[in-house]
Amino acid sequence: MKIIIINGPNLNLLGTRETSVYGDQSFESYFGTLRSRFPAVDLSYYQSNVEGELINKIQEAGFTYDGIIFNAGGYTHTSVALRDAIAAVTTPVIEVHISNVFAREEFRHNSLMAAKCKGSISGFGMDSYRLAIESFI
Amino acid sequence: MKIIIINGPNLNLLGTRETSVYGDQSFESYFGTLRSRFPAVDLSYYQSNVEGELINKIQEAGFTYDGIIFNAGGYTHTSVALRDAIAAVTTPVIEVHISNVFAREEFRHNSLMAAKCKGSISGFGMDSYRLAIESFI
Amino acid sequence: MKIIIINGPNLNLLGTRETSVYGDQSFESYFGTLRSRFPAVDLSYYQSNVEGELINKIQEAGFTYDGIIFNAGGYTHTSVALRDAIAAVTTPVIEVHISNVFAREEFRHNSLMAAKCKGSISGFGMDSYRLAIESFI
Amino acid sequence: MKIIIINGPNLNLLGTRETSVYGDQSFESYFGTLRSRFPAVDLSYYQSNVEGELINKIQEAGFTYDGIIFNAGGYTHTSVALRDAIAAVTTPVIEVHISNVFAREEFRHNSLMAAKCKGSISGFGMDSYRLAIESFI
Amino acid sequence: MKIIIINGPNLNLLGTRETSVYGDQSFESYFGTLRSRFPAVDLSYYQSNVEGELINKIQEAGFTYDGIIFNAGGYTHTSVALRDAIAAVTTPVIEVHISNVFAREEFRHNSLMAAKCKGSISGFGMDSYRLAIESFI
Amino acid sequence: MKIIIINGPNLNLLGTRETSVYGDQSFESYFGTLRSRFPAVDLSYYQSNVEGELINKIQEAGFTYDGIIFNAGGYTHTSVALRDAIAAVTTPVIEVHISNVFAREEFRHNSLMAAKCKGSISGFGMDSYRLAIESFI
Amino acid sequence: MKIIIINGPNLNLLGTRETSVYGDQSFESYFGTLRSRFPAVDLSYYQSNVEGELINKIQEAGFTYDGIIFNAGGYTHTSVALRDAIAAVTTPVIEVHISNVFAREEFRHNSLMAAKCKGSISGFGMDSYRLAIESFI
Amino acid sequence: MKIIIINGPNLNLLGTRETSVYGDQSFESYFGTLRSRFPAVDLSYYQSNVEGELINKIQEAGFTYDGIIFNAGGYTHTSVALRDAIAAVTTPVIEVHISNVFAREEFRHNSLMAAKCKGSISGFGMDSYRLAIESFI
Amino acid sequence: MKIIIINGPNLNLLGTRETSVYGDQSFESYFGTLRSRFPAVDLSYYQSNVEGELINKIQEAGFTYDGIIFNAGGYTHTSVALRDAIAAVTTPVIEVHISNVFAREEFRHNSLMAAKCKGSISGFGMDSYRLAIESFI
Amino acid sequence: MKIIIINGPNLNLLGTRETSVYGDQSFESYFGTLRSRFPAVDLSYYQSNVEGELINKIQEAGFTYDGIIFNAGGYTHTSVALRDAIAAVTTPVIEVHISNVFAREEFRHNSLMAAKCKGSISGFGMDSYRLAIESFI
Amino acid sequence: MKIIIINGPNLNLLGTRETSVYGDQSFESYFGTLRSRFPAVDLSYYQSNVEGELINKIQEAGFTYDGIIFNAGGYTHTSVALRDAIAAVTTPVIEVHISNVFAREEFRHNSLMAAKCKGSISGFGMDSYRLAIESFI
Amino acid sequence: MKIIIINGPNLNLLGTRETSVYGDQSFESYFGTLRSRFPAVDLSYYQSNVEGELINKIQEAGFTYDGIIFNAGGYTHTSVALRDAIAAVTTPVIEVHISNVFAREEFRHNSLMAAKCKGSISGFGMDSYRLAIESFI
Repeated sequence: MKIIIINGPNLNLLGTRETSVYGDQSFESYFGTLRSRFPAVDLSYYQSNVEGELINKIQEAGFTYDGIIFNAGGYTHTSVALRDAIAAVTTPVIEVHISNVFAREEFRHNSLMAAKCKGSISGFGMDSYRLAIESFI
Repeated sequence: MKIIIINGPNLNLLGTRETSVYGDQSFESYFGTLRSRFPAVDLSYYQSNVEGELINKIQEAGFTYDGIIFNAGGYTHTSVALRDAIAAVTTPVIEVHISNVFAREEFRHNSLMAAKCKGSISGFGMDSYRLAIESFI
Repeated sequence: MKIIIINGPNLNLLGTRETSVYGDQSFESYFGTLRSRFPAVDLSYYQSNVEGELINKIQEAGFTYDGIIFNAGGYTHTSVALRDAIAAVTTPVIEVHISNVFAREEFRHNSLMAAKCKGSISGFGMDSYRLAIESFI
Repeated sequence: MKIIIINGPNLNLLGTRETSVYGDQSFESYFGTLRSRFPAVDLSYYQSNVEGELINKIQEAGFTYDGIIFNAGGYTHTSVALRDAIAAVTTPVIEVHISNVFAREEFRHNSLMAAKCKGSISGFGMDSYRLAIESFI
Repeated sequence: MKIIIINGPNLNLLGTRETSVYGDQSFESYFGTLRSRFPAVDLSYYQSNVEGELINKIQEAGFTYDGIIFNAGGYTHTSVALRDAIAAVTTPVIEVHISNVFAREEFRHNSLMAAKCKGSISGFGMDSYRLAIESFI
Repeated sequence: MKIIIINGPNLNLLGTRETSVYGDQSFESYFGTLRSRFPAVDLSYYQSNVEGELINKIQEAGFTYDGIIFNAGGYTHTSVALRDAIAAVTTPVIEVHISNVFAREEFRHNSLMAAKCKGSISGFGMDSYRLAIESFI
Repeated sequence: MKIIIINGPNLNLLGTRETSVYGDQSFESYFGTLRSRFPAVDLSYYQSNVEGELINKIQEAGFTYDGIIFNAGGYTHTSVALRDAIAAVTTPVIEVHISNVFAREEFRHNSLMAAKCKGSISGFGMDSYRLAIESFI
Repeated sequence: MKIIIINGPNLNLLGTRETSVYGDQSFESYFGTLRSRFPAVDLSYYQSNVEGELINKIQEAGFTYDGIIFNAGGYTHTSVALRDAIAAVTTPVIEVHISNVFAREEFRHNSLMAAKCKGSISGFGMDSYRLAIESFI
Repeated sequence: MKIIIINGPNLNLLGTRETSVYGDQSFESYFGTLRSRFPAVDLSYYQSNVEGELINKIQEAGFTYDGIIFNAGGYTHTSVALRDAIAAVTTPVIEVHISNVFAREEFRHNSLMAAKCKGSISGFGMDSYRLAIESFI
Repeated sequence: MKIIIINGPNLNLLGTRETSVYGDQSFESYFGTLRSRFPAVDLSYYQSNVEGELINKIQEAGFTYDGIIFNAGGYTHTSVALRDAIAAVTTPVIEVHISNVFAREEFRHNSLMAAKCKGSISGFGMDSYRLAIESFI
Repeated sequence: MKIIIINGPNLNLLGTRETSVYGDQSFESYFGTLRSRFPAVDLSYYQSNVEGELINKIQEAGFTYDGIIFNAGGYTHTSVALRDAIAAVTTPVIEVHISNVFAREEFRHNSLMAAKCKGSISGFGMDSYRLAIESFI
Repeated sequence: MKIIIINGPNLNLLGTRETSVYGDQSFESYFGTLRSRFPAVDLSYYQSNVEGELINKIQEAGFTYDGIIFNAGGYTHTSVALRDAIAAVTTPVIEVHISNVFAREEFRHNSLMAAKCKGSISGFGMDSYRLAIESFI
């Protein structure tokens, strides 16, 4: 089973930014833990701050992988182009958020991604990624 | 570990209603499967179509259980009173939806529950409940 | 032919409340007249002020009756859960209103029920119920 | 008893247009059936695609007929002028729709006519007209 | 000086409709009074319930008359086409209303005509027309 | 003088929930204080989390009591049915809130109850109930 | 016949400001012309930039004058307090605007004054005041 | 105990304006009654139609009085500056309205004051002021 | 190949109105040029200012022609009835605009026609019609 | 004559994605056809999923080419930056869409590009590009 | 060079109000510092809580000073009349805010002043005034 | 002191585009002037049209520089991802605009950046950058 985690803008700062809120674990380190936990899964990881590069990666993985776990970060609420990419590929995509977006600013309550994803998981911290992998198994 | 699943209006019809969409498994039967899968968890289940009885149950479980898994059904989008109940109790509540609410009518895109829940899982069919239990472990 | 009339909140006060507007006939008395007029129809009647009990009754009648005539009263404009109940059952439901809701406050112009009902009749006073029965014949 | 049915834009195409949806009966043919069913009623019929001609006809019939049954078609949602005409005449007007307008596009959910009509009947197919006549008897 | 008064839908009913509100004087009779009062003005009058015929008349008068006094009635709030006609002609147009539109339903507060008219006069009853003529002198 | 206090959803948790904010006094205990303070008033008290039971109680008390003091809790902002119940009874109803609803989330700024109540008191903590009783004297 | 013209904020700058648009005539000078034209009318004039002073003046004149001609300037679109003042006095008030407010920014299309005034005249330049006086005669 | 009542625009007309609605008692006279009723309270009174003078008075009283009872009249719905003044001072402010603002025009349903006041009392007629004083005791 | 061009309100003024903007060529003259350019196409032309006559013509041509090129003018943004006519006929309809409607007033940004047309061409001046014919070939 | 076609996000998937809807022709293959059809035109082609790279290309071509044909894909509805780029260059830009955007989700009805383009063509499938080239000739 | 700083409502409380947030320096004291820093500038200062007096001052300074630095306080978001005053005078006006208005309540995000000012500076605390003076030099 | 100026989309065209409006000075040339004026400041400069590259640069500079001066161009109004980047770094960011965004199209009145910036300066042309540097000193 081949699964890729794709992280959008500013998620490369995890572990550095606001550590009192997000903890001091970087995503790379957490990714190591995930790999150990799911030895049977062929897990890969990609991060970019560039909307178009995220589209490129979704197109690239979207016809060959078994699953995409996607945290679109700030593009969640604004990118019709990413929504179209998700709709265009055949691999199922799962939307993931670390924080509870409904408890933040109103413009974060709407997700342009969600309608085209197979499912949505949000608010569980890093654990949201683990649950997404569980859902594919 | 004590966890309760609380289902809101019309979820008692699962297995009867629109079986081509929702499958022919009743929630009771699915609940049996869940119990077998998580033998270490003390799982219970409650369903009501009455908004106020759901509030009663959240209040009752909300100071003694370790977790509440809540599918508010159609009350998700309209009930300030249920939101207040979730905010008032100390047990963490996880919001669960069987279908992808963002792919349905616009008035289903907003959740009054979400801001007061620990996390949200939607779109995975019955499997959304399993993932919620995983999140508590 | 089995038809049930289901009345929502405050409709139990007909004949008592604002009699200069609504007349002094109670619904029970009017229901007697209806029965006499349609002897071939097996007519029954249910009223509740509780949203969830109305859902219970729609679920109960919705797989065995030939028709449901439903006046959701104040829940017409706010209850997604009742809309879902109507959508879930197989018996056709007809929406009925005594007064002309479009001539009242703006928040009464929208009906969450209508899209899931077979038809809508409003503004004819008590006579709206009679017309609904005619439509089933 | 003198009653006139006034049909608005595109209703002259009934029986020709989308026959799988609307059936292959023209309104003229259905009107014949109605006449036979209500021999005691002096029924007449008018159709126009021109908003102003519909106003003319409402003004003409609106002081001498016992009832007007009006299907404003696409003008239902946009014509303040037709609403004013209904308000200006003394004959009661009943609004009729063949389809369930609340199950269609959002801009069809609002009726400018309804507030000035005696009652509204929609969603019963051609039968909506029959029910309107019943309401006058 | 050549001035034309153009009246839109339902204004032909003045004197007949709701006489307790609008008085029992028909517009034709009032028009006679206006003519006597302004003997030096070549006054003419046109009324139609048909939006397109009002456009025709504005186009016809709009390059040769010295002034158009226009009461668009219910089309005031909905007709982009009439607004375009006013913008297309060279004769100045004055918008007139008998009643105070701002004291009526909210959808009457907006005028699509006003931005393209030279001026607007409303709320003075029939006298609004007299003031419009005064403005041209 | 017969007055009833009716409390809506979650108000049964006063004294238990968020005691740093609401204090550790239960409503039952506060109710005792009120009774001592107003010995001449025949005071009673009712609480329910069920919208329809609140309607039942308002109907029951609404024709025989001298005053109803009503805190609709989370139903304040969503229940057309409760508004209709208040409008239907003859006993004057006073709307009461413990907290300052205008200083909370935007969806709490609107009250569907207020237009049908005699008066509104909010923001004085438990003391809001005392002031409501004062207003009846 | 006693009539007062009340001008709101910035109207004291007429003749000074943007003379290519508004002409180089000050209001004082124009007021002289008006007085000559209507010798039988006892005309007075007041201007203030202070909202509350305008209210004071409306209250003062509003029980003894035969008419008030009011140009609220920028307060037209924002002042509920001025609207209340107009509603409170017994003298009829006529709303006047020099420019065509509907041809300007969108926030100028709404008038809080209009619903409480006897009539409205706008877009005729200084001549709007003359027409308002004509309306009183 | 030093308390000041501050009344905003048009409240100086109480007793003069629409006496059938508001009664024929002036606020000055009612103020006398209040004083007699609360001999232990050092009560003073201020009224102005000028928004800025109300700000001045709130600033002046807002650091030395024990309580301010404020009826902002028409400024309630439009004045950010008054809201800021209330927020800036240390004396608690209570918002008071004579009429039930929720039963009037929609633009009166919103209060910019409320979020910064300690509490709100509306709909009790003159008695609203008395209840506000009670709340301070 | 039989194609008809249908022009809506005010398009008969082309060549007369605002010639600095639209040029001094009438549509009739331009139509001659089109005919010469496409000798193999059986081209006809219809114009009306009356909404209902445009519906009549679409119904008439809509079952026998190979294509309809439709410029609805000001009705583009307001006519549900014309939209319904386009949806009802079997001939494909192409929407055409001379000017760039998106660079004009906001209320012109929405087209009720577009969703039911095969395609849309706007902003190319008269050339928009030529491109529409090209699209049919 | 030098013309460039610039395609935005996901348009590189044409021929691969949803072939039952979009056909199995890739854009590269279609581009070959276009080149053959217009031998006199110097046609080039660029595609990127990255918003900023599209801006770069528009800036690069926008001062030297004779025409730009631009399909902004999902950026059409969200990118102020692309709109600014179109406004900044001197080469005329034509907006093109393959599908009828007005027949899709509501958020696709608005185009931020259109107001700054010379013209717009949508709904003709691949043929939209050919028509755009025709418009430049 | 003659520059005036005009401060709106509640800014006279700087140094007194919420000193933990705004510091304990009064504006008068800060103004002294500014004067010392810009000895070559003829600086004056005016504050009022009255909207109309601010208009008076802008009119007075607006034809003779070289620059106006204006902090409209709470009037920023509500006063069309102040906007008109800024537009009417010839002296350039610079809008200044001490706090970051975009980080506060939503109704503070809109500035009616900005469109008519030469520039806007906000969020730098007292330093915003210094930067405004720099901009004039 | 280390400060970086980051310019967003289309700002590389300054000096080339619409020179009558923006002048013929390129930003590079202006940057030279800035450097001369502030010899004590270590000034650097970065421009990109790509949203994600701007995020990269803000992340890179955001933990080591003393200040970031950011003109997000068209992304100002649409990019949640850039807002998140600003919020994530520790270096203070100042928002800068050359033109007065409030005097342009309505969709430019809102800034997603502002709430997370230390301050905002707009409308002073190139001089806005100089003022931003002054603010850091």
